[in-house]
Amino acid sequence: MSKIVLGDYYPVYYGKPKDECGIFGIYGHSDAAALTALGLHALQHRGQESAGIVTFDDGLFHAERRMGLVSDNFTDNKILACLPGNTAIGHVRYSTTGSSALKNVQPLFADLSIGGLALAHNGNLTNGLTLRENLVNEGSIFQTTSDTETVLQLIAKSKEKSIVKRFIDSLYQIDGAYAFVTLTTKNMIGVRDPSGIRPLILGILDGSYILTSETCALDIIGAEFVREVENGEMIVITRSGLESIKPFPVRPKRPCIFEYIYFARPDSILGGHSVYECRRKFGQELAKESPIKADLVIPIPDSGVPAAIGYADTSDIPFELGIIRNHYVGRTFIEPQQSIRAFSVKLKHNANRILVDGKKVILVDDSLVRGTTSTKIVRMMREAGAQQVHMRITAPPIKFPDYYGIDTPVKDELLASNKSIDEIRSYIGADSLKFLSVDGLYRAMGFPCGRNAKHPAFTDHCFTGDYPTGLIDQSSKEKFHQLSLLS
Amino acid sequence: MSKIVLGDYYPVYYGKPKDECGIFGIYGHSDAAALTALGLHALQHRGQESAGIVTFDDGLFHAERRMGLVSDNFTDNKILACLPGNTAIGHVRYSTTGSSALKNVQPLFADLSIGGLALAHNGNLTNGLTLRENLVNEGSIFQTTSDTETVLQLIAKSKEKSIVKRFIDSLYQIDGAYAFVTLTTKNMIGVRDPSGIRPLILGILDGSYILTSETCALDIIGAEFVREVENGEMIVITRSGLESIKPFPVRPKRPCIFEYIYFARPDSILGGHSVYECRRKFGQELAKESPIKADLVIPIPDSGVPAAIGYADTSDIPFELGIIRNHYVGRTFIEPQQSIRAFSVKLKHNANRILVDGKKVILVDDSLVRGTTSTKIVRMMREAGAQQVHMRITAPPIKFPDYYGIDTPVKDELLASNKSIDEIRSYIGADSLKFLSVDGLYRAMGFPCGRNAKHPAFTDHCFTGDYPTGLIDQSSKEKFHQLSLLS
Amino acid sequence: MSKIVLGDYYPVYYGKPKDECGIFGIYGHSDAAALTALGLHALQHRGQESAGIVTFDDGLFHAERRMGLVSDNFTDNKILACLPGNTAIGHVRYSTTGSSALKNVQPLFADLSIGGLALAHNGNLTNGLTLRENLVNEGSIFQTTSDTETVLQLIAKSKEKSIVKRFIDSLYQIDGAYAFVTLTTKNMIGVRDPSGIRPLILGILDGSYILTSETCALDIIGAEFVREVENGEMIVITRSGLESIKPFPVRPKRPCIFEYIYFARPDSILGGHSVYECRRKFGQELAKESPIKADLVIPIPDSGVPAAIGYADTSDIPFELGIIRNHYVGRTFIEPQQSIRAFSVKLKHNANRILVDGKKVILVDDSLVRGTTSTKIVRMMREAGAQQVHMRITAPPIKFPDYYGIDTPVKDELLASNKSIDEIRSYIGADSLKFLSVDGLYRAMGFPCGRNAKHPAFTDHCFTGDYPTGLIDQSSKEKFHQLSLLS
Amino acid sequence: MSKIVLGDYYPVYYGKPKDECGIFGIYGHSDAAALTALGLHALQHRGQESAGIVTFDDGLFHAERRMGLVSDNFTDNKILACLPGNTAIGHVRYSTTGSSALKNVQPLFADLSIGGLALAHNGNLTNGLTLRENLVNEGSIFQTTSDTETVLQLIAKSKEKSIVKRFIDSLYQIDGAYAFVTLTTKNMIGVRDPSGIRPLILGILDGSYILTSETCALDIIGAEFVREVENGEMIVITRSGLESIKPFPVRPKRPCIFEYIYFARPDSILGGHSVYECRRKFGQELAKESPIKADLVIPIPDSGVPAAIGYADTSDIPFELGIIRNHYVGRTFIEPQQSIRAFSVKLKHNANRILVDGKKVILVDDSLVRGTTSTKIVRMMREAGAQQVHMRITAPPIKFPDYYGIDTPVKDELLASNKSIDEIRSYIGADSLKFLSVDGLYRAMGFPCGRNAKHPAFTDHCFTGDYPTGLIDQSSKEKFHQLSLLS
Repeated sequence: MSKIVLGDYYPVYYGKPKDECGIFGIYGHSDAAALTALGLHALQHRGQESAGIVTFDDGLFHAERRMGLVSDNFTDNKILACLPGNTAIGHVRYSTTGSSALKNVQPLFADLSIGGLALAHNGNLTNGLTLRENLVNEGSIFQTTSDTETVLQLIAKSKEKSIVKRFIDSLYQIDGAYAFVTLTTKNMIGVRDPSGIRPLILGILDGSYILTSETCALDIIGAEFVREVENGEMIVITRSGLESIKPFPVRPKRPCIFEYIYFARPDSILGGHSVYECRRKFGQELAKESPIKADLVIPIPDSGVPAAIGYADTSDIPFELGIIRNHYVGRTFIEPQQSIRAFSVKLKHNANRILVDGKKVILVDDSLVRGTTSTKIVRMMREAGAQQVHMRITAPPIKFPDYYGIDTPVKDELLASNKSIDEIRSYIGADSLKFLSVDGLYRAMGFPCGRNAKHPAFTDHCFTGDYPTGLIDQSSKEKFHQLSLLS
Repeated sequence: MSKIVLGDYYPVYYGKPKDECGIFGIYGHSDAAALTALGLHALQHRGQESAGIVTFDDGLFHAERRMGLVSDNFTDNKILACLPGNTAIGHVRYSTTGSSALKNVQPLFADLSIGGLALAHNGNLTNGLTLRENLVNEGSIFQTTSDTETVLQLIAKSKEKSIVKRFIDSLYQIDGAYAFVTLTTKNMIGVRDPSGIRPLILGILDGSYILTSETCALDIIGAEFVREVENGEMIVITRSGLESIKPFPVRPKRPCIFEYIYFARPDSILGGHSVYECRRKFGQELAKESPIKADLVIPIPDSGVPAAIGYADTSDIPFELGIIRNHYVGRTFIEPQQSIRAFSVKLKHNANRILVDGKKVILVDDSLVRGTTSTKIVRMMREAGAQQVHMRITAPPIKFPDYYGIDTPVKDELLASNKSIDEIRSYIGADSLKFLSVDGLYRAMGFPCGRNAKHPAFTDHCFTGDYPTGLIDQSSKEKFHQLSLLS
Repeated sequence: MSKIVLGDYYPVYYGKPKDECGIFGIYGHSDAAALTALGLHALQHRGQESAGIVTFDDGLFHAERRMGLVSDNFTDNKILACLPGNTAIGHVRYSTTGSSALKNVQPLFADLSIGGLALAHNGNLTNGLTLRENLVNEGSIFQTTSDTETVLQLIAKSKEKSIVKRFIDSLYQIDGAYAFVTLTTKNMIGVRDPSGIRPLILGILDGSYILTSETCALDIIGAEFVREVENGEMIVITRSGLESIKPFPVRPKRPCIFEYIYFARPDSILGGHSVYECRRKFGQELAKESPIKADLVIPIPDSGVPAAIGYADTSDIPFELGIIRNHYVGRTFIEPQQSIRAFSVKLKHNANRILVDGKKVILVDDSLVRGTTSTKIVRMMREAGAQQVHMRITAPPIKFPDYYGIDTPVKDELLASNKSIDEIRSYIGADSLKFLSVDGLYRAMGFPCGRNAKHPAFTDHCFTGDYPTGLIDQSSKEKFHQLSLLS
Repeated sequence: MSKIVLGDYYPVYYGKPKDECGIFGIYGHSDAAALTALGLHALQHRGQESAGIVTFDDGLFHAERRMGLVSDNFTDNKILACLPGNTAIGHVRYSTTGSSALKNVQPLFADLSIGGLALAHNGNLTNGLTLRENLVNEGSIFQTTSDTETVLQLIAKSKEKSIVKRFIDSLYQIDGAYAFVTLTTKNMIGVRDPSGIRPLILGILDGSYILTSETCALDIIGAEFVREVENGEMIVITRSGLESIKPFPVRPKRPCIFEYIYFARPDSILGGHSVYECRRKFGQELAKESPIKADLVIPIPDSGVPAAIGYADTSDIPFELGIIRNHYVGRTFIEPQQSIRAFSVKLKHNANRILVDGKKVILVDDSLVRGTTSTKIVRMMREAGAQQVHMRITAPPIKFPDYYGIDTPVKDELLASNKSIDEIRSYIGADSLKFLSVDGLYRAMGFPCGRNAKHPAFTDHCFTGDYPTGLIDQSSKEKFHQLSLLS
């Protein structure tokens, strides 16, 4: 394959793109597009680079895809007027690569022999590259760099007659983590991978079914939560109602633990757990595991707040805002370019100097990936006069990359993959550094005995290296080498 | 198939799109992109809606595609810096449908198993829809509405090994009119359809070969004309030089007569003829066939000028600018929306009142399609005081639609297809109306005996109904009916 | 005067515009524009609608003014390259009227007979309209709708010779609240109104003086705080250093209390007080004044957080995030259009349902203006299952409009101006509602005896009606009547 | 004065800007804005850089000003909906300086004590800079760099009561060439300078009066020509009808001859002359004065066409299009940047090679300013095989700059100001070169005895150095020196 570097809208293809995304679909509601826009707005934390909505109305599909936030692009009456119809699916996207160009913005659409099909995907395939190569060899022309198009191409080539069967046919061929919402001329289909790694829930509003990533997207429109889509379950929604299909052999459910730690919104309820409550408990558990005497518990804003409240509560040390965040920039973890990342740390946080001066402080954060931000914040605390700076991370060390749709660096850039905890402490300049243990994490999630190594309840490979599926693309080393030469 | 109505960049698919276009490619010149931009500017009369350039440099393809004029989009150093490499192909495009969206802007690109390929096309396939349906049934996903993508998909699916063989394999399957310029990782390929309907010429600058639609694109960059690409000839340009291949069974050459009448630039030389001289002779021939006494010969600006000079010359009546054109709007024939068309007539022309007042005037134009403009101009002349208004059209009546890449209305909207000449005269309100005869046209082109019905030298079906190829898509009526229901 | 409604950049003139703004200037630093951009970013909470920077370099002024955030407009190398020079002033602006068009974006500039002058203003004149009318009667042509231009026109017409004397001459004529930063060809001038209503501080970085609104703008660039500019003090910074002038008769200092309650950033230090600490104490004081039994103390995010921490601390009730904020929209108070305001409440907050369900909750906020947001949040708490909802406002009721540059509604729309506290409680639907007393506010600010009615330490007219200056424009009723007829 | 270099919309002030412009106003027509847009479109040849329309409706002024063509900016229903009211004035503008920024786009507007006033100007003041300096010294703040604002400031400062008297008061102070159209809350005023240098005509449509620069703007909307506004006449149009005022002492009429030679549209009628016919006669006159044997008469397109028709007619040599113009770029004379000028010659013209090859050709153009284009076109003819190239200019040599609103270079760059005719011939590389004589010019305009040196009928200083007014700004050399230092 050769690489094309294209101007306005073509993506650049840097190895393997990984996306964390949010999806939303509603079937049979007169306000479909507007509700989808609101749902996507509630899911904006899952992807800020682009958003798209596809509706179906009277035989025609209508689509709008934009770079940027939902609130900047889908709040205009004019754009909603371009999205008629009572069925809509939508997608917000964040890409770790440069490939956030308009062409990759989902939902993707294809005009198949059996009719049009729009597809929105949260997750990542572990055999996507391999499948893509096969398809290209057979004559398929790819227009995007996303795994999602691989599924679309598989559906296009399937010899099955119905769209449902074609979809299942394609799902059999793929491996990895996924939650899909699909819009066709006749139905809306949702499906969750056999391990249920990525979330997908079912809601209802005025009798219309909703498929979406998190409950907060139901709350914003006043919809009711019905149930989670089960791992390996496909839900087909038509005018006649809802049908549940289980096309896959049974596999144990292993939702991604990282949703609880960092990714989901604190007001969402996932797997029956309040995400806020989980994070609070991670803080409490860590306070039990790694207590220390200090004057203040300070959250790294904003993601560390619930955990810091828990830590402060259990350790009985006052919770205070020792770091003030400038709200006019986005979340570090979610910024696309490394060069901006360093700059935005400086732009985002300021020490609450008078509060911190002369104090022993405990900083609480929910994760530590590259350590860049932590290093700067510890230094900021010292410069503000902190006497001691103790860092507490309410998750275990991230030692292994994710391949299921969460952006993590490659292993070489994962701090905990290459350094001992004391080396990390020294690197970030803290007086002490403690991580929550894996068993502590499971205890906080309601497993008093900690992690069951044989039947772990969650996808937790970032901490344990225990990947729930094969990593086909990863294992074919030569293929990667070849790719890097060509692209 | 179902229709998708997409916002910013997706095309709308209204039945069958037809394009008249200009193409340009240069192989092995350090200034490839800048020269291509200049060449496309010289070809701007062949398509004003969009322009695109693809270059190849050091293993990578680079592309820029824009809506609008070359001079508005490709004169910036910044954009040329995005187009490195010493090989480039480019395209200007005009579309008669709404589908002039960015996605359809050529050159198209695909990442095939044997490497990247960019394709620029002037012409139109007569079995494009049929092929497209077959491809979609086999699982190909189309991203544009253009025939050009059909060829790209055929190349992608060909089982041949080399790109040249794959291309030939695909050309065997298509029917219609075409001139292609293709850029691959290894070569630049030009090919002209077996009848040579659309033009393609070979030029050279500083030892670098050029493939383009008209000689005026060579003039602007100071390149030399080498020869025309022959009908049915494929030219493969590599580092080692130029190779000519004739993959098709021999067919007689029948270039499109409409290039001489209207489409090509007057300073271009096509098939050894000066286009200006041809138009002048059409005027002279018509003056011989249909003389009339009058005070002034007035061209419909600007396309009628050379013919009017010829008519005035032979009839010995003064040539004067009786209609003044406002240069700040485009050409009527080339505007995309019917609603604008009516408006722009009013915006574009004004009578030279004092000149015309009280005179018998002869209006000379190169064609009469719907008659809308003519009607308004005749009325404008009368309102300016003209005593008599005689209309002379230096081409035969257009009775049949084109299917080879020139925009003509469907038969119902072709005035000459539905009315006698006297009815047309009455419709446009002229005192007399004469068209050049088909034999007169051939005489002016250098065939003293007129048209040879058995072996006509030109593609002239618009006047004669004699189509040089089968019209596969047209003949399958049911398919069309079905399409109109679905899309 | 007649009104002009202009397209792209002209302002619409709705009565009297009021701005809350942030200003920044640095004199004699090689990185002047970049540091100003960072300073303005730190002051972004003071105005999000537009930002502007003017620099002076080698005899020329350079200006860039943009609608939108600093981080969206002034982080590009290209724009900073357009702002050469080692002296720069900048401004962020929020307007309560429709007049946030580009033309009103500050700093304003005028080319005076004694040289160019750029002016950035935080505050509002109370005789601006009266002065403007006089100036227009004398032949001045205004290009903006802002009070700031009134000062510029006064400087232009002053008969004094030096810029400093002209400036003082103009200041004598104006009344109201202001902090100005001015850039001329020779110096940078800062001045604060005689009561010191709006903040202005002096900092230093690498030997270069800085004038800005808040200390957080020093922190972001690592500059040192020198001192506050005193009330009625003018500071003239030239190459030779800093000169302090006190052109006004002595008046007691009365900084605006609202900066502590709501407007300034919590990490800023104003008048020697940590703003965070003040807010925390407002919460503590209110907990003492109006305690209640409950399960949770919940801040209205984000501005209510420090006060809620204080309230929770003193009342010994757990502090929890019972309302989750969607970070992808701006601050309610700061949105320009009423129609968006209602919508954005819905878009911004969600109940932390599981936490709140079945609980007695205390909501803590820093102010209550129209009550629209409070009403919706109380309802949101009840719908999430809260058993009781108690509202605590850590400021006194706002009964009087501000005329000094903070956006407050007219009296008719101020809830506390028209209703008793119990009526407000009933209106917002809370089980109880308590405001901090004026004396409590002063106690929290370090005045154990509360407010001294004869010599109040702060500008607190919003609560007390005690305006520190005359309200000339307000008192001439007929003028207003006339204006509303004409404009 | 110091210079400000401002980003988006502020002008750069390069010495003295000179504009050639077109103006249009209509009073009391329900379609005022749309008709004004059409009128401006017909006047587009008078200025292509920007266009603006101001309307007055129900006490409010509405304005839209845009960079670029009328047809690109004012054909949208949306923009016309922003311009309600039955009275409108408009302006198209071309600037020779960099100051074509949005802020300078006319009509200018000011909110005066006696009500709003919008002003559109064609022409240039010869004491504009001097007046501006005085006004700035008295405290006026200028927002643009145009002379037009000087008049606006004078009106603003006038002590007269009525707008008409204020306007006259201001006109007494200015010197130079002007045609103004002014819109106030009560009337529309047109005025032409005492010598009538710039054109202004009166038309009528459906009972509504129109003031505009040329008759072609009446033709496009089907309006009737009433009469020319006389030199020194002011026309005040109100609901009650039209009033003519002659505020100035009588001066002889001397319209600018350059309108006939080059600037006006050929279909316009100026001073009772058909512009087309004048140009044709210039060609005839020159053919008499300077005949030569040759094969072809070739116009330099497009402005040389009428003159070439006249030359060919009288000399009985065939008129042919030996140079083909690419219609997708603007007119050389009108391009703003020197660097583009050279490039656009290359982009705009191509030799009609086969026609020209081996022939003796006569090139006819209407003017020769810098000689850059001519040089290139002569070379182009030779490269196309022309045996001899004779250049004929149907105007006298331009030896003196214009200061009345037509863009001409400074004296040093005027070829005819520095070289003999034979030197010019040699410079442009022609075999012969002839200009029309001044007397020949007058003869062609209907003065059989040629120019009357005592009472010349036209403003013809570009050829004769006989300026119709004082050149106040030009004569104060020191002031200019000072300006160049400061700005």
